[in-house]
Amino acid sequence: MFREKIKVLDCTIRDGGLINNHYFTDEFVRASYKAISDAGIDYMEMGYRSSRALSPEANYGPWKYCDDDKISRIIDGIESNTKISIMVDAHRVKEQQFQPKEKSPVDMIRVATYVKDIDKAIAMLKIANDLGYETTVNIMAASIEIEKDLIEALDQLAETPVQVVYVVDSYGYFYCEQIEYMVKLYRQHLPAGKEIGIHCHNNQQLAFANTIEAIIHNANYVDASLYGIGRGAGNCALELIMGFLKNPKFSLTPILKVIEDYMIPMRNELEWGYLIPFMVTGILNRHPESAISIRKTPEKDKYAEFYEKIRDSLDTL
Amino acid sequence: MFREKIKVLDCTIRDGGLINNHYFTDEFVRASYKAISDAGIDYMEMGYRSSRALSPEANYGPWKYCDDDKISRIIDGIESNTKISIMVDAHRVKEQQFQPKEKSPVDMIRVATYVKDIDKAIAMLKIANDLGYETTVNIMAASIEIEKDLIEALDQLAETPVQVVYVVDSYGYFYCEQIEYMVKLYRQHLPAGKEIGIHCHNNQQLAFANTIEAIIHNANYVDASLYGIGRGAGNCALELIMGFLKNPKFSLTPILKVIEDYMIPMRNELEWGYLIPFMVTGILNRHPESAISIRKTPEKDKYAEFYEKIRDSLDTL
Repeated sequence: MFREKIKVLDCTIRDGGLINNHYFTDEFVRASYKAISDAGIDYMEMGYRSSRALSPEANYGPWKYCDDDKISRIIDGIESNTKISIMVDAHRVKEQQFQPKEKSPVDMIRVATYVKDIDKAIAMLKIANDLGYETTVNIMAASIEIEKDLIEALDQLAETPVQVVYVVDSYGYFYCEQIEYMVKLYRQHLPAGKEIGIHCHNNQQLAFANTIEAIIHNANYVDASLYGIGRGAGNCALELIMGFLKNPKFSLTPILKVIEDYMIPMRNELEWGYLIPFMVTGILNRHPESAISIRKTPEKDKYAEFYEKIRDSLDTL
Repeated sequence: MFREKIKVLDCTIRDGGLINNHYFTDEFVRASYKAISDAGIDYMEMGYRSSRALSPEANYGPWKYCDDDKISRIIDGIESNTKISIMVDAHRVKEQQFQPKEKSPVDMIRVATYVKDIDKAIAMLKIANDLGYETTVNIMAASIEIEKDLIEALDQLAETPVQVVYVVDSYGYFYCEQIEYMVKLYRQHLPAGKEIGIHCHNNQQLAFANTIEAIIHNANYVDASLYGIGRGAGNCALELIMGFLKNPKFSLTPILKVIEDYMIPMRNELEWGYLIPFMVTGILNRHPESAISIRKTPEKDKYAEFYEKIRDSLDTL
């Protein structure tokens, strides 16, 4: 697949940070930035710009806050055409500071939101846009939203300056036909000037396949991470999407090198990827929290019991 | 997805046997058969019916030969509607014995072949059909065959009694659009009475997605294995396809139980699944042998070097 408009965003540090409370070392973040730059990746997401009032510094590493000067020190001296993005949770905006874009190393602000918080997201998008940043909105948990409400949110976003609207399969529930449906739904409700993005989770080993499916239906912004790192089952693997996209600006070797140097040792310390409890929450269209919890207990491999428990917990009237 | 005609074949013992020279214990094979039966899976493949002259017994376990009496002892006393299949390599038929179906526990003989050996495959299919077995042909390495030759083979198969013709992505190279193309090509060249099957490898984490894709385009025979076990990157995971198919005859719990009891410990002894060297041979459309070899050396995680070496070895004139 070659389409020049396709932009790849590496979310290793941001989504991976959800597993380790954003405590990645400077050495690793810098090595990732260099590899991602050498590989020709379009964007690298450094983490969240979170409120220190809501998320106290005692509990989190630096990539929970992504201070401008921290980012600047990390990328200093590395030759790069890769743009920097950070993420903000619409429902957790409090006292965070955003400098005008020309004073910041950040190029893009991505606003993560649930449908119910879309007005907060739009307010944040307008602030970011007025400060000169590129903007995206990432509507989380699309697989459990009521379609009428989702459409209303898309119709509202159509009237904003946001440049990219992401389909986000937070629970790793969708398969290809549902991805096609969602991307077409987003396309139908957004003006031609706005792009569609795709962010998939790998609960059913479908993150890469669904990313391809979205690209086929004209999504042009694609999230991926090194060796698929991310909360729970993780994300679309960056190395796979690199193998698929034929744009000659991309180079696979630096990505494979940083995986062998950092991700393989890291996988011994942090857990992510295809594991049965994440598959179970995926096929049942549930938040991965129950699977993440059981993986920290001696019952972590009691798959049959876990499946029946989660399945039966859905019974209600 | 619910379509009554869809048949699921578990190839755990057969494809998994390629990693351990077919030395699975009786206990494990029996536990698998029980779980697969309880789960409502249509077929279980026990292994190969190989020639002892070509493959001496000193080098292989019992599932290389799948003697009728061995199978009978394993399944004895287990209540089951699951049919039994065995595989034969068309190019390795020598002195193997096949009893008439009514004297054998085997229901189906699957003939694996390359396009160049299609005449040997057809000869074997006719023998199996005349003995009363269900038959399939599995055309391996479809991603490197010349299309004209492949079509000629399909046209020949159209004239035989074979019931199912499999699209086999031996190298894990295809993505969804190529699977759609191949399934439609097979459909076009085979009479309506013959079914299409799908057997995928997981080099690019696409085995399940491509299996879904084939199902969408009317493939009705689906290969999968417990926890995706199989040579190299392995196969479509049976637990994933069970989560996708909605036929009420299927039950996921017994599959999850046998995975927790046997596959998780086994994965500590035997290697299969998504690993970067298998991804590399997949995206380069190469046999996984070079990746399997390097995984047995101290260089097993030298991904960048391996990629460049395999990629450059393709340069020729």
